[in-house]
Amino acid sequence: MTTVYLAIVCGLIAVLYGFATSRQVLAASPGNERMQDIASAIQEGARAYLRRQYTTIAIVGVIVAVVLWVTLGTLSTVGFAIGAILSGVAGFVGMNISVRANVRTAEAARGSLQGGLTMAFRSGAVTGMLVAGLGLLAIAGFFWYLTGPAGRLPNDREIVEALTALAFGASLISIFARLGGGIFTKAADVGADLVGKVEAGIPEDDPRNPAVIADNVGDNVGDCAGMAADLFETYVVTLGVTMVSIALLIQADAAELMRLMSLPLIVGGVCIITSIIGTYMVRLGASGSIMGALYKGFWTSAILSVPAIWFATQYTLGDMHKVIGGAGFLDEGADTATATAGFTGLDLFWCMLIGLAVTGLIVWITEYYTGTAYRPVKSIAKASETGHGTNVIQGLAISLEATALPTLVIVVAVVAAYKLAGIIGIAFSATSMLALAGMVVALDAYGPVTDNAGGIAEMAGLDDEVRHKTDALDAVGNTTKAVTKGYAIGSAGLAALVLFGAYTTDLETYFPDLTVDFSLSNPYVIVGLLLGALLPYLFGAFGMTAVGRAAGAVVEEVRGQFRDNPGIMAGTSRPDYARTVDLVTRAAIREMIVPSLLPVLSPIALYFIVRAVDGQAAGFAALGAMLLGVIVSGLFVALSMTSGGGAWDNAKKYIEDGNHGGKGSEAHKAAVTGDTVGDPYKDTAGPAVNPMIKITNIVALLLLAALAANGG
Amino acid sequence: MTTVYLAIVCGLIAVLYGFATSRQVLAASPGNERMQDIASAIQEGARAYLRRQYTTIAIVGVIVAVVLWVTLGTLSTVGFAIGAILSGVAGFVGMNISVRANVRTAEAARGSLQGGLTMAFRSGAVTGMLVAGLGLLAIAGFFWYLTGPAGRLPNDREIVEALTALAFGASLISIFARLGGGIFTKAADVGADLVGKVEAGIPEDDPRNPAVIADNVGDNVGDCAGMAADLFETYVVTLGVTMVSIALLIQADAAELMRLMSLPLIVGGVCIITSIIGTYMVRLGASGSIMGALYKGFWTSAILSVPAIWFATQYTLGDMHKVIGGAGFLDEGADTATATAGFTGLDLFWCMLIGLAVTGLIVWITEYYTGTAYRPVKSIAKASETGHGTNVIQGLAISLEATALPTLVIVVAVVAAYKLAGIIGIAFSATSMLALAGMVVALDAYGPVTDNAGGIAEMAGLDDEVRHKTDALDAVGNTTKAVTKGYAIGSAGLAALVLFGAYTTDLETYFPDLTVDFSLSNPYVIVGLLLGALLPYLFGAFGMTAVGRAAGAVVEEVRGQFRDNPGIMAGTSRPDYARTVDLVTRAAIREMIVPSLLPVLSPIALYFIVRAVDGQAAGFAALGAMLLGVIVSGLFVALSMTSGGGAWDNAKKYIEDGNHGGKGSEAHKAAVTGDTVGDPYKDTAGPAVNPMIKITNIVALLLLAALAANGG
Repeated sequence: MTTVYLAIVCGLIAVLYGFATSRQVLAASPGNERMQDIASAIQEGARAYLRRQYTTIAIVGVIVAVVLWVTLGTLSTVGFAIGAILSGVAGFVGMNISVRANVRTAEAARGSLQGGLTMAFRSGAVTGMLVAGLGLLAIAGFFWYLTGPAGRLPNDREIVEALTALAFGASLISIFARLGGGIFTKAADVGADLVGKVEAGIPEDDPRNPAVIADNVGDNVGDCAGMAADLFETYVVTLGVTMVSIALLIQADAAELMRLMSLPLIVGGVCIITSIIGTYMVRLGASGSIMGALYKGFWTSAILSVPAIWFATQYTLGDMHKVIGGAGFLDEGADTATATAGFTGLDLFWCMLIGLAVTGLIVWITEYYTGTAYRPVKSIAKASETGHGTNVIQGLAISLEATALPTLVIVVAVVAAYKLAGIIGIAFSATSMLALAGMVVALDAYGPVTDNAGGIAEMAGLDDEVRHKTDALDAVGNTTKAVTKGYAIGSAGLAALVLFGAYTTDLETYFPDLTVDFSLSNPYVIVGLLLGALLPYLFGAFGMTAVGRAAGAVVEEVRGQFRDNPGIMAGTSRPDYARTVDLVTRAAIREMIVPSLLPVLSPIALYFIVRAVDGQAAGFAALGAMLLGVIVSGLFVALSMTSGGGAWDNAKKYIEDGNHGGKGSEAHKAAVTGDTVGDPYKDTAGPAVNPMIKITNIVALLLLAALAANGG
Repeated sequence: MTTVYLAIVCGLIAVLYGFATSRQVLAASPGNERMQDIASAIQEGARAYLRRQYTTIAIVGVIVAVVLWVTLGTLSTVGFAIGAILSGVAGFVGMNISVRANVRTAEAARGSLQGGLTMAFRSGAVTGMLVAGLGLLAIAGFFWYLTGPAGRLPNDREIVEALTALAFGASLISIFARLGGGIFTKAADVGADLVGKVEAGIPEDDPRNPAVIADNVGDNVGDCAGMAADLFETYVVTLGVTMVSIALLIQADAAELMRLMSLPLIVGGVCIITSIIGTYMVRLGASGSIMGALYKGFWTSAILSVPAIWFATQYTLGDMHKVIGGAGFLDEGADTATATAGFTGLDLFWCMLIGLAVTGLIVWITEYYTGTAYRPVKSIAKASETGHGTNVIQGLAISLEATALPTLVIVVAVVAAYKLAGIIGIAFSATSMLALAGMVVALDAYGPVTDNAGGIAEMAGLDDEVRHKTDALDAVGNTTKAVTKGYAIGSAGLAALVLFGAYTTDLETYFPDLTVDFSLSNPYVIVGLLLGALLPYLFGAFGMTAVGRAAGAVVEEVRGQFRDNPGIMAGTSRPDYARTVDLVTRAAIREMIVPSLLPVLSPIALYFIVRAVDGQAAGFAALGAMLLGVIVSGLFVALSMTSGGGAWDNAKKYIEDGNHGGKGSEAHKAAVTGDTVGDPYKDTAGPAVNPMIKITNIVALLLLAALAANGG
């Protein structure tokens, strides 16, 4: 139990760090009155959107909570509520600091590039540490309560179900937040660009554009709050499923189980400390490279995590060479020709190193595919010379190609971790990946702050000098945003087998008399794989269409304002920013509902339909296969969309830096088209695939429990 | 054996029909001298390309044949050679009639729309009947030889291997032809458009554009010869794998096996007859609808096929109610909770009706997604109003969405056929789908002829009236082209489980002592699924990049000709068409090699690497899972690319018909971008996924045989 207390302390330190750092941020000057005016418009818009989003989610959440309470009881409902509420808190607080740091970053950038970088990164670090800290507190605190005051054994079914329900709460909020925020941000962005840059011929972030505030609000509710909810979910699900798998698969006494189940918590804890240390290393070097400064922070955290994880493992398990589990520790559901006979603490340490290595490699691969210094982005920029069509063709080619290396990395990691310690080994690899979440989210949440800072600088009429600095800060944001998404979906690839293992083990526990055939020669397995694979496509279609439709509504609205009030274009009267924000808000909320329910309802529908056709065993086989189908296809859809979108965006930036004719050239126009196409790819449909995969899996686990509790 | 003879007779009738119809086509007037000049330039170019393509493929083919001869012996090598050569013949002859029918269609369209339609459709029907007839002759003739003069039993291992090798020959040629032809046609098309329409501002098919002949050559070598090779492959593989599955799975005496194995052949045979009857029904009705005329032919064939298949089944099996196989007829590899206990001739008849229904539904769904009368195409056209970006976003959304209904149809068909007659039932559903190949190919091969006819009319300066007629004929070509691709990939979806069944059964036969775990909880199964799923993405990336690169080379070349010879634009001197054709030829051949070898070498590499890491059982598990991974992901990649591409193309046509501002409007420019993006999607990368899936599967089967023959 001491280990769990230590983990809780680390979680509290993260929250404390967040609190202290946000005070530092707020203490800085918020700039002149005009800047504060603009910033407060953005703040109002973001708050109004989130209030509406969370109200809508709350309705869904209450319905789901009632269903859970009726089918699975109080503990699971409490777990669900904790996951849901803390996910909302992480997003809300992150957004709140972000909408205050933006104007302070613009002000600081009037001083120096380092000043702007520090301000924006600190704000990102607040969000990052809150995501990791609240995630760890949720899961460690709940586990402490269950095994302590509530007096349950660590592998009690109720603990398994309650932890799963906690993960479900986080996931459900996250898919709404990711998708709703994603639709908002891209509808506003695409709509503002179309009607502003293309039709009216005014620059980006021109204050005469009524959609300009909505665009800046979008950065905060999509790229900050939505992303934070997504990573909170990934963190909670990964640690949670690791603990659940240990409870399900390892046959050992309660003390040993307790030690093993608290290991993911303390690993998460120590890596919060290394992440905090890393945040202090983010400084511009002699080269002045911004990416280099961010990398210094990331690599410091990653490298310090190696000894930290070593000591945490040794402290928790004691003897690193003692064999855990032993022969037959794996449940029958997982008995493969290659199952290992048991594992040691050392094996788990190696598995966690694999997770860190995967994180590092995904960062590196993502930078290759989305950075302006390498072949992929340059090839898209080059293809822009021959027009819009060839830009998009090359971008699509790159997006398809960008799936290859991450897949190979994941495949090698799966095999290596499995050979070391079976499914538990894979689970620990995923855990150590997510342990760095604080740092990764910090890098990501920094992006929207600098993006906003640029917008505020433009609208407030600050020196071009300031805008140049914020632009430079923003450019690396495209890569760090793509990194986070690749990282989240990569960890989902690792977690897939673990989630499936939990499903098969649960199935055997709940339905011991039922033989379910998960062999590829069972046609219901093929049916499940195909329908699972369909989900990311259908989901992507919904997301893309929603952005297109909402952006169209923005165009109409802005055209209307220009028509009704000619003073706007003349610069004599102020456009009605709030009306546009409200319009996008309503559109985003409306469009997010159906696609978000798709992964919640599909597994349930599939099970009941197949059961009606061919009995329970067929239903469970199809459902299990759907879980893998959704990851097999979702991994590729998500990787291709997020990398491709990042590459398109940076190809435009590369041209704007003066290549292939620079700003205003024909190549630039083509690159703007590519960027527009990439927007919903990388910020709406692509990133929402990650929570979608998790939801499908968790709903299946809860369905099993609910069926068992209610007699099949 | 009488049934086999009858099937051979039907195959000969198809070839005879092709011969007679091509004489009719050639007897028509080839137009004036200018038209003949242009046509002969296209003929020369197409011949030159195919000569080079087949020479290159021959080198690869000879190497593969030697490998087969060393590892599997003479019979398999002969089978391979038959499949390879006849696939080449089908493509070559189809292309030859197509390059002669184009000019005659233009000439006939000077008379009447019906005249043009008849001429173009007859030419397509020649290709269609040759594909089905030669396919049937290849497989029925080889089977006759093996079971007759060569004296083998129908389920002899050598027959299984020889039929598999025949399918491999067809597939290997087909992937090169599909990809090489696809790169050629789209590089020429995109290149010609970019430098002609966009840069020089001259209309499509303007004779001053040096790439215009290459563009027209491309229609023939890609959409005609490449498509014919692809469908020949699909035909041979589907019928072949159905026969192989019967030999592997059914335990019965030689006479009963012989009857059952000849059933796919005679079903193919009678449907050739119904397809021929259908070709005579293609006539414009009172409404003048061209699509309606084509549908009359298709539905006539489809409806007549129902009684024809009934009588063929009854004739072959005798008693329609006698139970075949009986308890335990399915091999252990396929023992699932839902395996049926045996099946009757009536069950097989129902399965074949399912196949016909799938074909009809896919035709209907494809028309919905690519026809100008429905929401999807209209939504893309509407999105074009707000620019290039929104056009592409909506097109991508439609392409993702278009995968849903076909997947549901396939899933329902798999379950229904499996419940009727197990894996054999699914195989017969696929067989009856392919039995209509003659008609489907006829509809498709009609497209490039009308496309060329339009080009010739333009270049020869015929009346605008003629061009309008050929344009109307061409417009439905986009839908029929998309139909064929959806149909081919849909049948691949059905065949996937059959091919996997053959793999598992082969595995048990060749390696009886080895236990291979195909359960989804085996990590090597996940590894195989993920790497299999990667193949279509990587393959798509190669295809898209190849088109982009080759189109870029065309642009440079044409710019060079305009610069060196200003007389071209002035219309005083003729551009050097042949040089451009030669350039595209070299580019296409160069670019097709590596991606075509990807599906050949990947399964082999995966097996040996995994075997080295974790032994033979792990290797076979990963390899088997790769076969399903490639279909699970390939189905979606192919469906989305082919439907999306067709929808983009027709959205452009819809705007050109005067909607959203019509030709020359901003919406039209955006739609041209979408069309350009859709080109390599629908004509290069997308359709080549189908042979790629088959190749991966067949290579795995041959690898098993080769490993067994050479002591593992």
